[in-house]
Amino acid sequence: MKTLKIIKIGGNIIDDTKKLPSFLEKFASLKGPKLLVHGGGKLATSMAQQMGIEVKMHQGRRITDADTLDIITMTYAGKINKNIVATLQAYQCNAIGFSGADGNTIIAKKRPIEAIDFGFVGDITQVNTSILDVLIHNHITPVFCAISHDEQGQLLNTNADTIASELAIAFSENYTVELYYCFEKKGVLQSLQDEDSVIQTIHQNKYPSLIQEGIITEGMIPKIDNCFYAINHNVHKVCIGLPHMIFNPTSIHTTIQK
Amino acid sequence: MKTLKIIKIGGNIIDDTKKLPSFLEKFASLKGPKLLVHGGGKLATSMAQQMGIEVKMHQGRRITDADTLDIITMTYAGKINKNIVATLQAYQCNAIGFSGADGNTIIAKKRPIEAIDFGFVGDITQVNTSILDVLIHNHITPVFCAISHDEQGQLLNTNADTIASELAIAFSENYTVELYYCFEKKGVLQSLQDEDSVIQTIHQNKYPSLIQEGIITEGMIPKIDNCFYAINHNVHKVCIGLPHMIFNPTSIHTTIQK
Repeated sequence: MKTLKIIKIGGNIIDDTKKLPSFLEKFASLKGPKLLVHGGGKLATSMAQQMGIEVKMHQGRRITDADTLDIITMTYAGKINKNIVATLQAYQCNAIGFSGADGNTIIAKKRPIEAIDFGFVGDITQVNTSILDVLIHNHITPVFCAISHDEQGQLLNTNADTIASELAIAFSENYTVELYYCFEKKGVLQSLQDEDSVIQTIHQNKYPSLIQEGIITEGMIPKIDNCFYAINHNVHKVCIGLPHMIFNPTSIHTTIQK
Repeated sequence: MKTLKIIKIGGNIIDDTKKLPSFLEKFASLKGPKLLVHGGGKLATSMAQQMGIEVKMHQGRRITDADTLDIITMTYAGKINKNIVATLQAYQCNAIGFSGADGNTIIAKKRPIEAIDFGFVGDITQVNTSILDVLIHNHITPVFCAISHDEQGQLLNTNADTIASELAIAFSENYTVELYYCFEKKGVLQSLQDEDSVIQTIHQNKYPSLIQEGIITEGMIPKIDNCFYAINHNVHKVCIGLPHMIFNPTSIHTTIQK
């Protein structure tokens, strides 16, 4: 099977007007089939502030009311996605921007209201790669923003890490998929005080103790859960680290292992 | 050759929360290859006002500075485009949203600064339909917003009527293209006071006198120029009127003829 690289970038690259084009230039030059997933960074929050719309959070997670969903759709699928696509075109990488509604690629259901109503947030139920396969076969690079839909006309805000892992799993039927989560550190750190204390391999059987010991905490837990979910569902390779790891595979980063 | 219907809708449909889903339901049920082009309606203007960004106009035409381009990208390619795509999916029409940067489909150059600097406005230089052909062959309906790019990473605000006519011309190599411009009237009117005074056919040789007599004026002139440009470049059929004309071909509308 051919190798497909799926790369997720977040706010630390998207919000940086120097890092983003430099990353995209290198991404464009990557040989072989590839797919980019991007988060939204801080743009949605600053847009909401500029428009006088209150940003509602619950335990660090955004509550997506109708106004917030509009802002997310405008910034993620509009400004960020289209500028990434236009920049990739400038580097001769023929890209097409996607939300999960486009091509009916990522279907989700609105998260049920329990103790808290997170609003228009989607939990993915199905990924359709057939039209993406056709595009990749035609040397197109899909660029996904973190929005899904419910097939009833409703767009849904969806975690970008999860979109990346669900796409990776779905593509693993037809490709050897490598999934790279880029973030602001060289990898998962043994000690947050030491940027070089990268844990180079996280085995599944060691993961619970890393949580118990307080080494992996808070926001890193759902991220690494996503990684294990992917590696346990036929994704060939899952890595976390600086974008550098994609272009220089021998550079230090964290690899997730079954 | 197969028939491809290209339909352009404007503000009178996009801004109307009842008309838009009802139009999209009927559009979804249209048999055969089809493509939708949408303008932006009033949303960009109201967004700019909400964000405290001045809307600059010159003789009725918007001046697209960097802030305005951002708003246009957010509203046209983000909110409007993705909601149209999600609604079409709900009606079992598998759509993918496009700007001209996506798939490198619509290339333009920034309009040169002459007496007035219109800013980030694009004049189309090239249309690439090859990837759109692949998608249409795979029963996908492309949905275009009115944004092009310059292949150097710059998005450009571009007239939606022109995007529709340029796509129609480019597709005429491989399809019998029917181009429908939907607007708020039954067709081009002989008298603006009489909504039923539709001129059913405008022949090229009669067009100059209609302008001279003041029957076709102002904003209608560039629209009908676009129509003639299309019909003179191998587009099979060009019509102007209410959306009704697409679904009921015998209903009154204006047809442009060489």
